[in-house]
Amino acid sequence: MTTLYTNHKAKEYRYIKLASTLESKIASGVYRAGEKLPSVRKLHKRTGLSITTVYQSLIELEKRGFVEARRKSGFYVKPRLTQILPSPTLKRHRPVAKKVSINAVAASIVEAMGDRRIMQLGGTVVAPQLLPHKELNRIVKTMTYKKLTDLMTLYENPTGNTDLRRQLARRCIDLLQGTGIDDIVITSGCIEAVSLCLQAVARPGDTILVESPTYPWFLQLIEDLKMLALELPTDPSSGIDIDSLKKTTRKHRVQAAILVPNFHNPLGFLMPDDKKKFIVSFMRKMKIPIIEDDIHGDLYFSGQRPATLKSFDRIGLVLYCNSFSKTVAPGLRIGWTIPGAFHDRVRQLKINTGIASPGITQHVVAEYLNGGSHERHLRNLRTILKNQVNNMALMVARYFPEGTRITAPKGGLMLWVEMGSGVDGLNVFHAAREQGIAILPGAMCSTTRRYNHCIRISCGSPVDEKIETAIKVLAEIVRNSSG
Amino acid sequence: MTTLYTNHKAKEYRYIKLASTLESKIASGVYRAGEKLPSVRKLHKRTGLSITTVYQSLIELEKRGFVEARRKSGFYVKPRLTQILPSPTLKRHRPVAKKVSINAVAASIVEAMGDRRIMQLGGTVVAPQLLPHKELNRIVKTMTYKKLTDLMTLYENPTGNTDLRRQLARRCIDLLQGTGIDDIVITSGCIEAVSLCLQAVARPGDTILVESPTYPWFLQLIEDLKMLALELPTDPSSGIDIDSLKKTTRKHRVQAAILVPNFHNPLGFLMPDDKKKFIVSFMRKMKIPIIEDDIHGDLYFSGQRPATLKSFDRIGLVLYCNSFSKTVAPGLRIGWTIPGAFHDRVRQLKINTGIASPGITQHVVAEYLNGGSHERHLRNLRTILKNQVNNMALMVARYFPEGTRITAPKGGLMLWVEMGSGVDGLNVFHAAREQGIAILPGAMCSTTRRYNHCIRISCGSPVDEKIETAIKVLAEIVRNSSG
Repeated sequence: MTTLYTNHKAKEYRYIKLASTLESKIASGVYRAGEKLPSVRKLHKRTGLSITTVYQSLIELEKRGFVEARRKSGFYVKPRLTQILPSPTLKRHRPVAKKVSINAVAASIVEAMGDRRIMQLGGTVVAPQLLPHKELNRIVKTMTYKKLTDLMTLYENPTGNTDLRRQLARRCIDLLQGTGIDDIVITSGCIEAVSLCLQAVARPGDTILVESPTYPWFLQLIEDLKMLALELPTDPSSGIDIDSLKKTTRKHRVQAAILVPNFHNPLGFLMPDDKKKFIVSFMRKMKIPIIEDDIHGDLYFSGQRPATLKSFDRIGLVLYCNSFSKTVAPGLRIGWTIPGAFHDRVRQLKINTGIASPGITQHVVAEYLNGGSHERHLRNLRTILKNQVNNMALMVARYFPEGTRITAPKGGLMLWVEMGSGVDGLNVFHAAREQGIAILPGAMCSTTRRYNHCIRISCGSPVDEKIETAIKVLAEIVRNSSG
Repeated sequence: MTTLYTNHKAKEYRYIKLASTLESKIASGVYRAGEKLPSVRKLHKRTGLSITTVYQSLIELEKRGFVEARRKSGFYVKPRLTQILPSPTLKRHRPVAKKVSINAVAASIVEAMGDRRIMQLGGTVVAPQLLPHKELNRIVKTMTYKKLTDLMTLYENPTGNTDLRRQLARRCIDLLQGTGIDDIVITSGCIEAVSLCLQAVARPGDTILVESPTYPWFLQLIEDLKMLALELPTDPSSGIDIDSLKKTTRKHRVQAAILVPNFHNPLGFLMPDDKKKFIVSFMRKMKIPIIEDDIHGDLYFSGQRPATLKSFDRIGLVLYCNSFSKTVAPGLRIGWTIPGAFHDRVRQLKINTGIASPGITQHVVAEYLNGGSHERHLRNLRTILKNQVNNMALMVARYFPEGTRITAPKGGLMLWVEMGSGVDGLNVFHAAREQGIAILPGAMCSTTRRYNHCIRISCGSPVDEKIETAIKVLAEIVRNSSG
């Protein structure tokens, strides 16, 4: 009886022990999110434990939430969406409208983006191998002579290729009911969409409300258009602070807002639906147009496609912007906007600054969407990005010095890292560039010095040894900067 | 002897008579510029005249300057670059800086441009069959999988594809000595180039000098950027009036000028080199940057490639703009600028409003230029456009009411038609649209009412019966409007 008991105890220990070993290997990144654990047979051979024990330990791991079983395939490491490091927290500040002057730093960052020899952790770029290049190639190669000639030798419709707008209007059914072909304007990426919308709703000298921190490109647009940026305190887990919004719009004459409610860049938060609804109705009362950037909206890590601000808008005061640069092909430069009540003005501005976007690139995306494989591709891409963001966060947690805070994004491909308050993100940027690594310094995301100790890291590429080395180098730079 | 003399006389008359008959057929458009006359053998059969007499009459026609003999091919009708109708003349006026508001009319014109069922005499569009579509198709179809994938899935260099800039820098050797790869920024057509340059040199509220009349798009850009347009009296045969330039720049604070010295749109003039030189040196003294639109520079009808303002510029105060929309493929939207001293600012603005132009369209043009057939294509295109412009001018001369004046462009593809002062060009535009014909009303080319009795007609398509019918319809509309 004793023996039996002991045996039982020993057996229990054995499977728990193996589960814990595997867990620590997952925690330390030996097995990464999205990767397959060794098979039951392999573990049995390596550990000398019985098949049953091995199997029990894997079930235990699954219960603990570290792996998931896939039918006829094995056990896979799950991404840990729970917090790995503490989150950055909301810091309230008194919002002041400010002139913007970040263009100089921006130039050097974009330069780094174009350099193929540099480890790209700076730009919001998805690795080419994760994009549907096979399908896109097939479309280009099977175009007829007549079609290709037309697309090259004629001006495209200034509002955008009709087939492409039809495909977009179809895809809008769930989110933006009632969006028709003629409500859409095709642009050169999401940035041109935001730029045209901003020019449509505001004039030089006007004050534009943005999140704090915000996407650097918005600040550059505001700078170029001689407008003022008003940064609103923003909760890193749910978006702009409603109290501050109320107070600020009472105190300042705000002409428009640029918001990223879904998987914010750089913070990664998903604004709750209630808050979205409230903001749209509040801004309607205040008669302030909202430019909504939804570029990461399709890249959710769990649940379903989040709602847009636009879907709560009944009077066309939300100017919706999106693009295919993160999901299909950045090089094609295809973005789009549903500018609501400002449609005619946005269309005119599009015509005036370049007549129309190229026909061939629009046609390729229209055909791709028509092909029907986009939803499947998006499902794969979401899983892959979820794993990459998780693995990158684990590595930052492992290598960065104590006191580091990090966001737990619910979608997209960005991590926002808050370092010790003594660390200068710009110094980290320059030191990293010298070692062939590009990141985005937090200073770029604000007109204030509030995020100078932050950096943004992009998780668009599959995590491999090179990236791990880069994170180690970064951590070393940060450690030295703290000293 | 008498007989002989009579015979001689009769024979002389016969060849002169045939020559005159053919001349009147050319003048009345039965044989059009660029077309081949019937062969000597055919004329001999039709007229019953001897081969020698027919040949004599063709030589006579050649002497008179109506045809040219082409070796082993026959006699071809030459375009008549001499004046067919009287030219519009320079009218001096007191230049006043004005707000611009032509966007509303512009929208309906661009809409017409996109409508394939409409006879396109409105936009500056070259017919697709005149463009090198065969070569462009070949390039797209022979691209490797790797190349195409890279072009679609990666962001292109924000300043522009390096191969394309290299090709451009090579082609610049004669005109713009010393222009290197890094001096060029690739844009979405010439309009984006001008737009970026304008934003680089001036701010909202600034006064911009333009020719009068000018290209409508410039006025729209000035309107969008909340600047003021100052129209300078312009000689329809040589460009802006120097006296007015001197007086105006003394009286007004002018921030920049947009000039089209080569085959101006809409007037078609070629500014003499002396004048170009003077203007560049004068503006240098005044410290006023010149944005030079050279989009028609390669489309000269005789002599050699005209000089650019940029070629007289030693300090980078000329921002040179051009595109391939009139010579290679408008649908590819490839323009470029050499912004001189303002390079970094223009480059930054390009990045900020869309990151980069698509890679695939830039690559196609780079490969096309590399292919080496561009010069031959340009030679053909120049001859064809020269003939088209001539034939169109002849038809306007034939069908439009007395009192009509018309330009005699030395290049490009535009005719500027001044109708009786009682005719409203906007009414002509609307009446023509109803009958499926698009033209450009002169009112679009100015902030004043000075050109309300003018229209611009595009000669980008081969003249055929349909176009002749359209010109007849236009003439009828004009005739009715005069009454």
